[in-house]
Amino acid sequence: MSVTAAKGFTAAGIAAGIKENGNPDLALVVNHGPALAAAGVFTSNRVKAAPVLWSEQVLKGGLVSAVVLNSGGANACTGPKGFQDTHATAERAAEVLDLNAGEIAVASTGLIGLLLPMDKVLKGIGTAAGALSEHGGEKAAIAIKTTDSVHKTAVVAKDGWTVGGMAKGAGMLAPGLATMLVVLTTDADVDGDALDRALRAATRTTFDRVDSDGCMSTNDTVLLLASGAAGVTPQYAEFAEAVRAVCDDLGQQLIRDAEGASKDIRVEVLNAASEDDAVEVGRSIARNNLLKCAIHGEDPNWGRVLSAIGTTGAAFEPDRLNVAINGVWVCRNGGVGEDRDQVDMRYREVHIVADLAAGSETATIWTNDLTADYVHENSAYSS
Amino acid sequence: MSVTAAKGFTAAGIAAGIKENGNPDLALVVNHGPALAAAGVFTSNRVKAAPVLWSEQVLKGGLVSAVVLNSGGANACTGPKGFQDTHATAERAAEVLDLNAGEIAVASTGLIGLLLPMDKVLKGIGTAAGALSEHGGEKAAIAIKTTDSVHKTAVVAKDGWTVGGMAKGAGMLAPGLATMLVVLTTDADVDGDALDRALRAATRTTFDRVDSDGCMSTNDTVLLLASGAAGVTPQYAEFAEAVRAVCDDLGQQLIRDAEGASKDIRVEVLNAASEDDAVEVGRSIARNNLLKCAIHGEDPNWGRVLSAIGTTGAAFEPDRLNVAINGVWVCRNGGVGEDRDQVDMRYREVHIVADLAAGSETATIWTNDLTADYVHENSAYSS
Repeated sequence: MSVTAAKGFTAAGIAAGIKENGNPDLALVVNHGPALAAAGVFTSNRVKAAPVLWSEQVLKGGLVSAVVLNSGGANACTGPKGFQDTHATAERAAEVLDLNAGEIAVASTGLIGLLLPMDKVLKGIGTAAGALSEHGGEKAAIAIKTTDSVHKTAVVAKDGWTVGGMAKGAGMLAPGLATMLVVLTTDADVDGDALDRALRAATRTTFDRVDSDGCMSTNDTVLLLASGAAGVTPQYAEFAEAVRAVCDDLGQQLIRDAEGASKDIRVEVLNAASEDDAVEVGRSIARNNLLKCAIHGEDPNWGRVLSAIGTTGAAFEPDRLNVAINGVWVCRNGGVGEDRDQVDMRYREVHIVADLAAGSETATIWTNDLTADYVHENSAYSS
Repeated sequence: MSVTAAKGFTAAGIAAGIKENGNPDLALVVNHGPALAAAGVFTSNRVKAAPVLWSEQVLKGGLVSAVVLNSGGANACTGPKGFQDTHATAERAAEVLDLNAGEIAVASTGLIGLLLPMDKVLKGIGTAAGALSEHGGEKAAIAIKTTDSVHKTAVVAKDGWTVGGMAKGAGMLAPGLATMLVVLTTDADVDGDALDRALRAATRTTFDRVDSDGCMSTNDTVLLLASGAAGVTPQYAEFAEAVRAVCDDLGQQLIRDAEGASKDIRVEVLNAASEDDAVEVGRSIARNNLLKCAIHGEDPNWGRVLSAIGTTGAAFEPDRLNVAINGVWVCRNGGVGEDRDQVDMRYREVHIVADLAAGSETATIWTNDLTADYVHENSAYSS
């Protein structure tokens, strides 16, 4: 399934030897058309990896015939040589697949500041090309894992057309715990402008609101490729909703696999004066290390929620704020509410509601708790 | 020493029973004049504790004759009753000390959302008043501790006049790991305007740049009281420098005592286009959880420094950035620099230099590493 659920696509995932442990580390996704329309959304970090700089250029042409993805190295902060390596990667894929290098996107994930072992990458592309299959989506999803404990795929099948995809990372587009790479495919016949509109709308309310640790990667990439092989052009709204659903599904899988996390926290902001206010408050709560520690300790510490709200510029009056944790309104009108001992926090999902009492807009941000395991994984990652 | 190093001040610290473990939890600092000039700087969190709201009003009058401080409860998010309790605290101190309640500042620290046991607070004020002494500064510093492992005091003695002070917290004024309370005293004869100017200048480059975990307290308070008892009015520049030196000393003590930390990290930003840029970049680096984990693991992971810089709006070109860790320029021109194996990270202090190559401004932000102990302390604090 995954990126090969939609007609017109093949994929492969192989071990090219980029990772020293011999695990799969190189994936290919090929669009066999008839259409080659594509859209992409990339990290807003100003320090961008070479493959991001390359793929942004490719997407400007509007056509993507293949994507080469590797784990085991981010090819970020690698200077002109790193960019040459990405270029050589696309050229090699073009050669073995008989395609135009200018239509081949590249995505990389792994440690920053290391050049890729290009002999292995270039040889691996040949191997992957030989392994391309209409059933290769799962193997491709496995090959892009880094610290992921599971591979992530999602599919929405509609009447005669399909949107599917794969993701890696325990992170997110705007901020990112680790690099997030996502490739979505569809066999619907949708032009580049509609793809771009649907993808931006979807990422804005899904991946962009998954904020595991507030850190933004140099490599985050989300691509949407359309083959047109189904010969169907759905209504825009229906198509956009399918793209959103796949993004939402993959985003949830990212949060559930966040490094070291023991809780998935849904921060829902209600009654904000604007959607921007709701997102700002949601992010402030989601990024508060003290609160994330408290949730880890199953402590419904609503004072830390108020403290986080207080650092924002959103419209609210301190003495009108209400906070619920797992359904119990522990803070009413800025002060003590219902008995905090009633809050049951034994389960993995925790639901925090912040009612700003300042309007009618809402937003939901997903995050994780802060754990000793997170510290351990991220202090030992490159050592 | 501490707040009683300067002439004209007495202080006391006693156990009023606010803390269940019986440790000291109530402090008094009294200015016996002849002057009662004062200045204060408070949290910029919009959710402010009752004692902050009270003391801001007191400071508007420009005169402070005494400060009542308690640990064991923040009196934040406690509604009108919490404010009445702060008012009653000042009234009680005024009564036992024969002072004007409108000239008595109050500061509290501890858990948010709990009302103080006012019978114990009011009784404790009487006990503390009876214990006031010219040698009471140390006991006062001990009584305001919460999770602090040591009490913090500092003194600068000049020719005929002195500035001294005490602090609690493992945190900071703008952002705060926990509440920071600071009381500074001087026997120099300095008017309120000069005190205010000197205090704001000092906190801007000291406490405001100590950013242990990016969280901002509802209770942060820094007070500077001048008795004039030395009968000396120093030059403004010399006085301001003494205040800055005491703040800097106390700020360093806060960082060294940050909850669960194993490293003190000095983030120095060089060659920024503006001081604001330098501070923004320094804070972004200092708040990056992934980097803070890496430093804990003694991993000179400069890619995470670049990634943090890339999220800011500061002026820089990615391929001109340079980063040194403990003296080794591990990143040159946005790419790999000197051998990272040369970086010695065995010691507690870690020095990160980020060279933006965009101007000549500079700023230094202090932070700590992110550790499993931090998670443990902050997930178990209120349970």
